[in-house]
Amino acid sequence: MAPNPIYLGVVGVGGVGTAFLQQLAKLPNAPSLVLLARSSQTLLSPAPSYSPAIPAADWQTASTAPSITKSGALSSSELISYLSSAPGRSVLVDNTSDPKLASAYPEFLKAGISIVTPNKKGFSSDLSLWKDIFASAASGKALVYHESTVMAGLPVLSTLRDLVATGDEVTRIEGVFSGTLSFLFNTFAPVSSSGSPAKWSDVVIKAKELGYTEPDPRDDLNGMDVARKLTILARISGLEIQSPSSFPIESLIPSELASLPATSAGVAEFIARLPEFDGSMDALKEQAEKAGKVVRYVGSIDIATKEVKVGLQQFDNDSAIAGLKGSDNVVSFYTKRYGSNPLIIQGAGAGGDVTAMGVTADLIKVIERL
Amino acid sequence: MAPNPIYLGVVGVGGVGTAFLQQLAKLPNAPSLVLLARSSQTLLSPAPSYSPAIPAADWQTASTAPSITKSGALSSSELISYLSSAPGRSVLVDNTSDPKLASAYPEFLKAGISIVTPNKKGFSSDLSLWKDIFASAASGKALVYHESTVMAGLPVLSTLRDLVATGDEVTRIEGVFSGTLSFLFNTFAPVSSSGSPAKWSDVVIKAKELGYTEPDPRDDLNGMDVARKLTILARISGLEIQSPSSFPIESLIPSELASLPATSAGVAEFIARLPEFDGSMDALKEQAEKAGKVVRYVGSIDIATKEVKVGLQQFDNDSAIAGLKGSDNVVSFYTKRYGSNPLIIQGAGAGGDVTAMGVTADLIKVIERL
Repeated sequence: MAPNPIYLGVVGVGGVGTAFLQQLAKLPNAPSLVLLARSSQTLLSPAPSYSPAIPAADWQTASTAPSITKSGALSSSELISYLSSAPGRSVLVDNTSDPKLASAYPEFLKAGISIVTPNKKGFSSDLSLWKDIFASAASGKALVYHESTVMAGLPVLSTLRDLVATGDEVTRIEGVFSGTLSFLFNTFAPVSSSGSPAKWSDVVIKAKELGYTEPDPRDDLNGMDVARKLTILARISGLEIQSPSSFPIESLIPSELASLPATSAGVAEFIARLPEFDGSMDALKEQAEKAGKVVRYVGSIDIATKEVKVGLQQFDNDSAIAGLKGSDNVVSFYTKRYGSNPLIIQGAGAGGDVTAMGVTADLIKVIERL
Repeated sequence: MAPNPIYLGVVGVGGVGTAFLQQLAKLPNAPSLVLLARSSQTLLSPAPSYSPAIPAADWQTASTAPSITKSGALSSSELISYLSSAPGRSVLVDNTSDPKLASAYPEFLKAGISIVTPNKKGFSSDLSLWKDIFASAASGKALVYHESTVMAGLPVLSTLRDLVATGDEVTRIEGVFSGTLSFLFNTFAPVSSSGSPAKWSDVVIKAKELGYTEPDPRDDLNGMDVARKLTILARISGLEIQSPSSFPIESLIPSELASLPATSAGVAEFIARLPEFDGSMDALKEQAEKAGKVVRYVGSIDIATKEVKVGLQQFDNDSAIAGLKGSDNVVSFYTKRYGSNPLIIQGAGAGGDVTAMGVTADLIKVIERL
C-alpha cells in the first residue's frame, strides 16, 4: 500500500471547513492540499508541479506566501481543469451548502475527481441529479462519499449502505433528524416534566438565543432540512424519490404566518406573533400525554408502501425517540435480519467538529480506495 | 474500477458460515470462491487455474462434482500455500472461533492474504498476537477487517476506528456486550416490572431452554466473552491490554460452584444448585431499586485511567442501558467532540444472519481496497 500521491481541493472555510482543515492537518499520510477556495479568494499550489502544498493548519499565513498562487473565485470548470491536471488522483472536498457547486458534481466525477462532502444539495434535489452523480462516478472511476449529509459524523449512511449491499431488507426507517427540532420538543414536551410547563413560543425564542436555530427559525420549522435527509435515506434504500417536495411535510410554521417575508422584519413579526399559537401546541402536547406519550417531530420511511413522511407523531415514553436528550438525533433501522428490535444510532447530529469528522473519515476511506 | 479477480477461501460452515455463504451467493461482482473448508473436508478449485469456482449457494451439491478437488482438513501452511498461489489477490474468511487458525493470521497476512473474520480469538488473546497481526498486514500489504468480533454486524469497530483516525479523543466506552446477559438482566430486573418478580435461577433456566445461552451457561456467566470484546475495544482505543484476564472480571458463577467440572453432570449440578443463590441476586436487584435504578452486566473502559472493568453496575431507569429490550446490545462512546451526550449504537449483537452481515460488509470493503 505505498500510496500514490493524492491531490486535494477544498471549497469552503466556514464552521465545518475550518474544523475539517484542523483534522486534515493532523492526519498521518494526508493528501496534498493544492487548492483552497473561499468565496473571495482561491489559493492554489502552482501548476504544473502542484507544489508546494498549502499547509492545512496554517493556510491563512500561507495565503500571503509568494510560493502559493492566489486567484479570485474559480468556476466549476476551472476547478475541474486544475484538479484533473494534477499529477495523480484528485479529490474535491465541498464544505459549502452551495447548490450550484453540487449541480456540477457529475462533471467533476466524469473527469475522475472523487467527491467528499457534507453538502446535502447534490443528493436531495432532483432525482436526475442523484442518478447523474452516481452514473458519472462509475464512468469516471471516481468515488462519492457523503456521510455527513445525514446526522453529521454518525455512521448512518455507511450503515444503511452496508445493510442494502449485504442483502438485508430494510422495511422501515424512523428518527429525529434535526438537532434544532430535537431540542425544541425535548424541552417543550419532556418525558418526565418537573416544574412549570414551557410555552412553545418561549422554547423557540430560547433556542434562537442559544444559536440552536438558523438565523431565521422558520428555516428549521418548515421541515425542509429533515425532508432533504429523508430523501437521501429513501434513495439509498432504493426508493425513487423525485424531490424533497414530493412527499408530505408538516410545517411548524402556522399557516396564518406563512406569508410573512423572509426579511429580518419578517422574522421579528413571526417571533412576535408565535405566542398566538401556544394554545394549539399545548393541545397537541396534552393529547399525547393523555395517551401516555410524548409528541416529537420525526421523519419516517415505509419501504413497502413507499411512504415518506415528515411531521409530528406521538411516541411511547420508553421509546428511543422519547428518551432523546438535548439536541441529539436518533435513527432506527427496521430490517428483516434485525427483526422486531431495530438497529439504532444516536448522538449529536450537527456541529462543526462532528460534521467535519464525518468528512475526514470519508476522505480516509476514499484515499484507501484510490 | 474494473476489478481484478479476487480469490476467496472460507473456513467454517456453522451458523455464521452458512449465513455468510447465502449472502455471498447474492453479492454482485462476488469474488471467486476457490476454497471452502469444514472440519472434515476441504473443497478446492483445481490449481493452477483456480477454476471452476465453488458455487457459494450450492456448495453441498458441488462437493460431489468431479470438477472440484476434495481434500481432508488442511493445515494453516497448506491453506496459505494454496491461497497465495492464486492468480490474483486472495482473502481468507475465517468463520470459526478457532484459536489455532487465529494464531496463524500473521503468516496469512505476510503472504499477502487479507483476512475477514468474526473470530475474536486473534484480537483478544495475547497482546503480542494483536501486534503481530497488524504488523504482518502492513508488511504483506494485506488487509484485516473484523467488525463482527464485537456486537456482530453493528457498526461498532468501524465507528471507533473512525473516531480515533480523525483525531477525536475517546474518553470512555460503556455498554452491554452480551446478548445472553442482556436478556438475563432485562428479564430479571426490568425497568417497569408488572407481575410477580422472576427468580434469577428461573431466568437462567428459561434462557438455556430458549437456546439463548451456550450449552454450558457458565460460558456466558463467567464474563469472559464480554472481557474479550472489551479487550478489542480498548486496544483500538490505544490501550495496551496484555490479555482479557489482565483486568477485573466479575463472574456470575457463585464461588461455591466454581469448581464444578465442565461436564454435562457439572452443568446439571450447577443448574440444580443455582436457586441457592437467588437470595443474593434478589438483594442486588433490590439495592438498585431502592436507588431508583436497575442492575445490569456491563463492560466499561476509562481511557484516561486505563481502567477496564466487566461486571454488575447500577443504571438510572431512563438510561440507554436500562432501556434495552430483549437480548439487544448497546455501546456508548464518550468522546471530546461528542461532549456530554455519547454516540450510541444499539441492536442485535449476536445471531448468524447479523454476524454474517458484518463479515460480508467487511469483505465488500476489502474487495474495494484490494
